[in-house]
This record gives sequence, structure tokens and C-alpha cells, in this order.
Amino acid sequence: MKKTAEELAKDIREISVSEFFEKNKHLLGFDNPVKALVMAVKEAVDNSLDACEEAGILPEIVVKIKELKEENVYSVSVEDNGPGIVKENIPRVFGKLLYGSKFHKIKQNRGQQGLGISTTVLYSQLTTGTPTKIWSRTSPNKPTYYYEILIDTKKNDPIIEKEEYINNGIKERGTKVEVTLVGKYRKQVETYLKYTSLSNPFARIIFYPPHEERIVFERSTNSLPKQAKEIKPHPYGVEFWTLVRLISETKSRNLLGFLINEFCSVGEKTAREICKLAKLSPEAKPQSLEKKDVEKLLEAMQKVKIQRPPIDCLSPIGEEELNRSLKRMFPDAEFIASITREPEVYRGFPFIVEAGVVYGTKDSQEFELIRFANKVPLIYQQGACAITEAVKEIDWKRYGIEEIQGIPNASLKLVVHVCSVWVPFVSESKNAIASYPEIVKEIKLAIQQVARKLAIYLSGKRKAYQAKRRMEIFYRYGNEVASSISYLTERKFDEVRRKIFEMIEKKIGKEKLEETEKQS
Amino acid sequence: MKKTAEELAKDIREISVSEFFEKNKHLLGFDNPVKALVMAVKEAVDNSLDACEEAGILPEIVVKIKELKEENVYSVSVEDNGPGIVKENIPRVFGKLLYGSKFHKIKQNRGQQGLGISTTVLYSQLTTGTPTKIWSRTSPNKPTYYYEILIDTKKNDPIIEKEEYINNGIKERGTKVEVTLVGKYRKQVETYLKYTSLSNPFARIIFYPPHEERIVFERSTNSLPKQAKEIKPHPYGVEFWTLVRLISETKSRNLLGFLINEFCSVGEKTAREICKLAKLSPEAKPQSLEKKDVEKLLEAMQKVKIQRPPIDCLSPIGEEELNRSLKRMFPDAEFIASITREPEVYRGFPFIVEAGVVYGTKDSQEFELIRFANKVPLIYQQGACAITEAVKEIDWKRYGIEEIQGIPNASLKLVVHVCSVWVPFVSESKNAIASYPEIVKEIKLAIQQVARKLAIYLSGKRKAYQAKRRMEIFYRYGNEVASSISYLTERKFDEVRRKIFEMIEKKIGKEKLEETEKQS
Repeated sequence: MKKTAEELAKDIREISVSEFFEKNKHLLGFDNPVKALVMAVKEAVDNSLDACEEAGILPEIVVKIKELKEENVYSVSVEDNGPGIVKENIPRVFGKLLYGSKFHKIKQNRGQQGLGISTTVLYSQLTTGTPTKIWSRTSPNKPTYYYEILIDTKKNDPIIEKEEYINNGIKERGTKVEVTLVGKYRKQVETYLKYTSLSNPFARIIFYPPHEERIVFERSTNSLPKQAKEIKPHPYGVEFWTLVRLISETKSRNLLGFLINEFCSVGEKTAREICKLAKLSPEAKPQSLEKKDVEKLLEAMQKVKIQRPPIDCLSPIGEEELNRSLKRMFPDAEFIASITREPEVYRGFPFIVEAGVVYGTKDSQEFELIRFANKVPLIYQQGACAITEAVKEIDWKRYGIEEIQGIPNASLKLVVHVCSVWVPFVSESKNAIASYPEIVKEIKLAIQQVARKLAIYLSGKRKAYQAKRRMEIFYRYGNEVASSISYLTERKFDEVRRKIFEMIEKKIGKEKLEETEKQS
Repeated sequence: MKKTAEELAKDIREISVSEFFEKNKHLLGFDNPVKALVMAVKEAVDNSLDACEEAGILPEIVVKIKELKEENVYSVSVEDNGPGIVKENIPRVFGKLLYGSKFHKIKQNRGQQGLGISTTVLYSQLTTGTPTKIWSRTSPNKPTYYYEILIDTKKNDPIIEKEEYINNGIKERGTKVEVTLVGKYRKQVETYLKYTSLSNPFARIIFYPPHEERIVFERSTNSLPKQAKEIKPHPYGVEFWTLVRLISETKSRNLLGFLINEFCSVGEKTAREICKLAKLSPEAKPQSLEKKDVEKLLEAMQKVKIQRPPIDCLSPIGEEELNRSLKRMFPDAEFIASITREPEVYRGFPFIVEAGVVYGTKDSQEFELIRFANKVPLIYQQGACAITEAVKEIDWKRYGIEEIQGIPNASLKLVVHVCSVWVPFVSESKNAIASYPEIVKEIKLAIQQVARKLAIYLSGKRKAYQAKRRMEIFYRYGNEVASSISYLTERKFDEVRRKIFEMIEKKIGKEKLEETEKQS
């Protein structure tokens, strides 16, 4: 034997989550300099929007990207007017991977993994060694607190390089973060911000690109969307071990209370039904259940008919709001329509799909798929996304749209938004939604619903066009028609002719007629 | 304001890596019951193969899958004849995510993330609550040690449910692991084992599927491949922060020694060149370098011409071995060829691509892509893989192969193996390789190289076929030809005719001629 178990044992050790992602940063989306810059902006802006929404503040976000004198090194800063972050939490929010408030809540959020901004801090440190700068002010009555932070990757803990109260910091309230990283600036940053403004029409975003004029994405509404509420887990989405943990943690004294208090959509009647089917007493102490009992309880929970989870944990863009946003963004479009589907449930998690079409814009003759998850634009990994799969499964010809290899071939922009308390992303970089059959099916239905609206428009357009063509032909042969009718009816040619041309003018309008005259 | 920073701060907390993957288990490949069963077998078998190879033992692996009486619940056990695991390490190897010996080494391994088997333990616990059973024996002189383990997901630490020495355990030496999980058995498990045997021809694998006869994948060689060696990082693959860490940890007293000792491919000459370009003294104490100096050093390290990293850290299957494996697995194939490319380097990491073609088997008329990374078959996410991208980029018609939408349309199996000290997988489930341009390019070259061999065969086959057709036509009109020649040369018809048919028989063989006779 070359090596014994004892020899092999020597090298074994724990890997911190920071070390893991340091080596696997492509999983976080930091696989090349262009994408890294987009990811940095995205993680910071997503955080700002989440914080403003939770605090009930209309967001105003300033994004600045500067190219530094070193080759491919950029400074990225994002400042918001949000609630700020309490000073004690700042080091871990920015300097520790897997830390946050959103991971354990069942509620629609932009962040959901507890990775987010700290991954940007990590990438910036790996590539330039520069600490991340954070300014935070939680009230106009308090000064701004300032931090410089690095991550101790072996321990996955923050290293505080500097901290102090400063006077010339945030204007009133809010958070500002500044990172220095190796990157490459491309238009994707602007695209990400433009589409963020589309799905968050209540946000004002001011963007300073490197070497270019500032761009302002104004808000098109002054009212914040209804805030998503946290819900309890739904019985259909619970696994064995989750149930064990809920039982061990509950304060309810009996099984009946446990079922009613720890789950959503469970009232007394449903709870009693579950107990009955599981052959367990509603009065049993939850902690007294044995493994066999928990198995029976879980089985019964899956079999009893239970109401859908409440949907106030979701916050869709809304049909009207999406339509208004699209009209503002594509003012020259020939046709725009949007729809919001009814909520669906996936493994106990509610989700909603929204879709919009923008047809016939002058900027592009090509098909463009604009994807969103929980109001965040998805810029990369289009090929791996459930939305793309749904697009390919649709028979576009049925909707009057040509296609090439399953993809529409028309001046068409298709917007799809999936929002859920838990979006299954294909990787930590959150750029594509995993193709779970229930989700793909619902996306398909949403696209078909909005495509039908487009099809009606297109077929109407085609009918109007055909009617116009008929009239034009009639016009072209007007004199001959007049002469024939005059001959058949024995009326005066001039009179018949005048009436015919009057009729045509009425039908297709004088201007168009003159145009037609010139062309023909 | 609806919520202040202080209110928002209350919910914030740390997320353990186990909790993270409990919620995101699809990232680990456990997104549906069929895949879960494949992943469980894969993680255990990969570990067994790694351990046997490291210990220099010819692997014999027994995989058993039993369906239990509960619906969709299976027990999966994998036993090997490897070196075993020392008793103290077992709880953390199986009961802690991000723990292992392979993560920090620059060396080709099946596992590389420190996730592996513990993710299977986690999934089994989540779905059935059953502890994982582990038997390990490190020497025939010692008894087997037995464990039952769960994971404390909040702490990401093992919970030992039971541990003891037992007498009737492992026969001589080795490890056995048994998990109970919610799954669904499909043929993919067998496919995974079959292809594992293809890429690891030195392993004997005995498989007991549920409700079916056992299947034995015999080894086709009795010699283990040359063991991969650990290397030091190459200067071209180092980032700023890695350099900072290497400097802080080095025992070398001066910069020259630091460069020579901590990196591969750096000798004294190269080290002096780097120092000169960075304008740093070779005698400088590494720890005395300031941030500016480290930046200059890193820049110089990227600019000086440095030899490629050594390639003994890699362990390809080998051209001959792959060919032999393919012949054994597809004995009825019309044509088989394999190639191993020269090593290439990607961000300082060496990698090798191998490819094989199997043409014209009777079992299937369809194209099949058989993907491997570090000798592990990749079963899922084919669409997201760099290998698939390379296949699509190839103009198959140039090689005499029809194609539909970029995919060959022929009775063709294409085998591609990428081995590296670090394979960039698109997710933790390690089912697809990320499409980095350098890697896609090299895969393409490998496929083209082996496709050329196939093209030569196919064009030869076509030529032979055309020659045969010519002869057959000659034969069909033999009597007429004979009569014409007899007339022209004034020789006897019978004599000419005999000579012509003798010639044809010689060219295409008597048997085939008779066959042709019957057909025509």
C-alpha cells in the first residue's frame, strides 16, 4: 500500500465557506472581469432596493463606476436613501458569507441566500486586496458611521481595518458601499439598471458610467408596491427533517396547536383531519412524538386537502404597472400588452408569473427575451433558464410570429417575471431559474396568454391591411369601375366616379389615398 | 418609515453551510428523486475510487440498492476494499459539509470541493430522518469501527447517534456507507456505473440493482494508473489575495527563496527576472513587502515568461487504455479510435482533454455524447456543459457525418474526458463543465482530431464501396463485355469471359460475388 488510512488522515481539514467560494467564484458569477463588474453593481443595488422597500422608503440610488489608473481596475460605489444598517451589524453583513435576514424568511425578497454583497467584498479583496468602504447613517440625528472591511477567508469572519464616526458622510439616512476590483466595463451594467428601473418603477436610479455622461432612470410612480408579508411553511412543502425541527422548537403544548400555529393554511378543522388520518391524538405533546409518529404525521399532511398558501408573501410588478413601465421604456412600440397570472404553488411555495410583449420598436428588428426573478433582471445564463425553455416550447407560428429553431424571429421583446418566496436558481450567481416542470409550465401559460393578445392585434392588423389593399386596388381601377357602372346603370360617368372616390376616401382616408396615389 | 434600521437588524443572523444547502439542495444535484439516487451512488463511488487510488489498491466496489417497504424509500450501500478511514475522522467526513483533504491540494481528484458524501448524508436525513451508517476497517489486524451519524444543520457539525467496535464488519480493509433516502430507481445508476468502469478500467464494480440480477463490471487491466502528484501554484494562476496569503505564510527568508519554494515552474533564473521586473530586491524579506510591492510583484509574475506547470499532477485515462475500454464495452462497433491531447494550461491550472469515437454499433443508430471530468461520468446538465458547446461548434459534415442543428445524426458515440487539477463545474452537483473559452477550444481540437480518424475510415469505406459497386456493374454486364472484347480482339468468347470473371472474383471475393449474384 502506498498510503495508509493514518497517512491519508493527516491532510484532512475544514474548509470555510469563504475559502470555498474564493476557489469557486465562478459559482457566484465572478468568472470574468465583465461579469464581475455587473455582479458588483447588482448585489449592491438589490440590497438597496430590498432595504428601501422594507423600510417603506421610495428608493433613490446613485451608482458610480470609475476606471482607476491601473489597468482593468475599477471603483464601484452604490449609495441609497434607505434605512441604513446599525453599526454593530455592518462588519458581518459585508465581511461574512452566509449571513443575513432574508434566508430564513418565507417571503419574496431580491436576496434570498445570505451571500449577496459579501461575495462582492470577497472578489474585490481577492483581485485588488483593497478593503471595502461602507458608510451608514440610520437617522438624521446621528452622524455617519464609516468602516473599512476585509474578510478573513480562513475563518469566514470580517477583519475591521478602520471604523469611525464621520461628519461629511451620508446626507440624511442611507447606506453607501464602495469596492475596488479587477473588471471590465461593458454596456451590461446599463442594461441591468435600465431593466431594474422597468421592474421597479418606484425607484429613481442615477448612473455615472466611466468616461460618459450620467444617465437618470426616473421613477414612473410615486407609490411603493404593497409590502410582501412573511408566511409560515405550508404543509405540502415540508420534508421529514424540517418537521422534526419544527416539533423540537414549537411552544405549542399539543399537536393540534402545533399544526395550527407553525403552518400556514391550517385551521382547526384541517388540523383535526391530519391528526385523524395520522392516527395521532390532537392532544399529544409534540415533543413526545417518536420517529414512526413523525413519519405518519408527514404522510397525513401530504394527503389531507389543504388550502393554498396565502399570497400576500408575494409582490408582483402588476399588470398595469408593467404595461406603464413598458410604454415609458419603448414609447415608439406598435403594440404593448402585459398580463399577471394567478398564483400557483410549487412544493408548498407560492409563485406568480407575469409576462409582457413589446412589438414593433424601431431600435431593433430582433427578438429579445427580458427575464426577471423577484424584480431583479437576469442578465446571464439565458440558455440555462426555465424561461428560455418555456419560450422554446411555444409554437410561435400559432400566434402569427415566425420562428427560427424555436425562437421568435420578429421585432419582439418578451418580458417574463417569476416571483416567489423561493426561486430555485441554477447557481449562487442567481442568473437563471432551474427548469422545474411546474414552473416551466406556468411560464409557458403566461407567455401564451400574452401572445394571444399580440396574435389578435397582428391578425387585426393583417385584416385592416387586406381591406386597405382591396380599396387601393379599387382606387387604381376607379375610372374603369366608374365607366362600367355608368354603362350598366345608365347614370352619368362623372357622378358615379365622384361617388366611388368619395367612398374610398372615407374608408381609407384622404392622406393615405394621396400617398397611395404617389406610390402607384 | 415602516421599519427602522434597528428593527431590521433584529432578524439578521448567521446561516450555516448545511442550512444553506438544505434549502438549496438542487445545487447539489438532489432536485428530484431519480437524480438523488444517482447522486448518492456517485458521491460514494467517487470517494471509494479516490481512496483506493491514493492508497495504491486495485478497487473492488460493491453497490447495493434496495427498495424498502415505504413508497419511494431506498437503502443505498457502497462498500470498497480501500484503506479505510481513521475512526476519529469519520464523523466529520460524513457529518460536516465543507470538510476534506482534496480541496486545498493542486492535484487531479474526483472530489475537489469538500462537499461530496456529506451532501448525501444531509439529503438522506432531510427526507427520511435516518442516520447514515458507516463501517470502516483500516487494517486486518484491527476490528471494524461502526458509526451512525446525523448532521446538526444549524451548526454544520456531526451528531453521533451510535459508535462501537464490531466483529462482523468489513472483511479485511475498507469503508462501507449506507444511506436511506427518498428516491426513484432508474437506469441512470447503471449508466453511471458502466461509464465509471469505462474511465476506470482498473476497477471492478459489482452492482445489485433493486428487483434485478446483479451486474458485474469486470476490470480490463490489473495495473493502477500512475498516481497524480500534488503541485504548487503556478505564478500565472495567482491572484492578489492568494499572493498576500502565501507571503504571510512562507518560511522563506527572502523573496528569491519565496518565489522558488512556493511556486511551481520557478527556478532561480526566473525568480531573479521577476524581482528585477518588479524592482524589488531578491534579498528582501517577504513579510516586509507593502501593498504596493505586492502589486508590482504580481504584475511582474504575470509578465515574465515562465515554463508551464508540471503535468504529473494529472492522470488521464490514456489513449490506449481508453481504446481498449471502448473495444471491450462496444465489441460490435465498426470503428473505434481514441486520442489524448497534450496538456494545456488554464489560469495556471494544467488540464488534458481526451476523446474517443465509437462508430456503427448495433444497439443504437443515434448519436450519444459520453462526458467525463476527472474520470467521473457526467450524467446530467448536458445542455449546460462546455463539452456540448464544443460538439455544436464542430462542422460535422466536414468529417463525413450528417448533422441536425449542430448535433451529429449517425450511429456515433463520442467520448470526451476533461481532466484537471481544478475543473470549473457550473454548480456544486458537478454535472457540467463551465464554458471557459480556453477549455471549449481545447475540447474542440480533441474532437476534431479523433473525428479526422473517423473521417478517414468513412472515406476509405466509401471508396471501397464505390470500387465494389463498379465491379458489381462490371459483373452484371460481364457477358456483354466478354462478347465485345472477343469481337474486338478476335479471341474466343469463353476464354475472355472466364478471364473477366476470374479477375472480378479476385478483386471482390467469391463469396461476395455469389451474394451479389443472388441479389441482382
